[in-house]
Amino acid sequence: MTSPAFHTPAAAEAAFYSAFATTDASGMERVWGQTGPVLCVHPGGALLAGRQAVLQSWIEIFAGAQSPGVEYRLLESFSDGGLAVHLVEEHIRPSASSRAEPTRVLVTNTYRREDDGWRIVAHHASLPLMPRRGTTPQVGPRVH
Amino acid sequence: MTSPAFHTPAAAEAAFYSAFATTDASGMERVWGQTGPVLCVHPGGALLAGRQAVLQSWIEIFAGAQSPGVEYRLLESFSDGGLAVHLVEEHIRPSASSRAEPTRVLVTNTYRREDDGWRIVAHHASLPLMPRRGTTPQVGPRVH
Repeated sequence: MTSPAFHTPAAAEAAFYSAFATTDASGMERVWGQTGPVLCVHPGGALLAGRQAVLQSWIEIFAGAQSPGVEYRLLESFSDGGLAVHLVEEHIRPSASSRAEPTRVLVTNTYRREDDGWRIVAHHASLPLMPRRGTTPQVGPRVH
Repeated sequence: MTSPAFHTPAAAEAAFYSAFATTDASGMERVWGQTGPVLCVHPGGALLAGRQAVLQSWIEIFAGAQSPGVEYRLLESFSDGGLAVHLVEEHIRPSASSRAEPTRVLVTNTYRREDDGWRIVAHHASLPLMPRRGTTPQVGPRVH
């Protein structure tokens, strides 16, 4: 099978969210880093380290699930050389046709350039549990 | 005032956690990026963008708080050129002398090299809410 080349972090990000939106485990497998450590934290989840644990988690999430509605918005990015970090807000709905208010998820995605293109190597997602307070600064719970 | 130079991402990380552990708002101010975007997500919190919002959140967290017990452990790192990403597990206790079981927080810290040294530019923290299930893969809630 010819592996697609992701020529930019943005291309890898688009492939990641396309695989997510279509519950495509093979697509997930292609876009995660092949040659080094990979890590994933689902919302409220523990750390998953290594391709097997990370890809297995997506297989379990996809199992029996209908394809969700997935939109994402790049909030900020940092990049240098073969490394890029994207702060992203995901909008997740139960299905692509759902008109429900989306669940908003904050994500830090890390991309690394491998020999044949960019891949995702870390995905850290969290749910904002605290209500927004208008225009005042947002403050987390007391733990930090 | 002479600003200290953080010669490595690890030095900036040590300074960040030292400021956290000593509720030192000035230390926080010195270690956050000075010349570009900065972002912070406290556990369960919304996105904070910009130095003012980020530093104000730490001032509010520090206000009236006793110094917490803060330990951190580097789980994985990625770096290239002037950018570095650290996956970290924090162990937070109510005070340095507390013998309580620590709250474990998963964090993605992003560091950028500025003209005079490394600084933190993004801190994304989350609480693992799901219990660990022995050695089986960890799976997040259904949203993802």
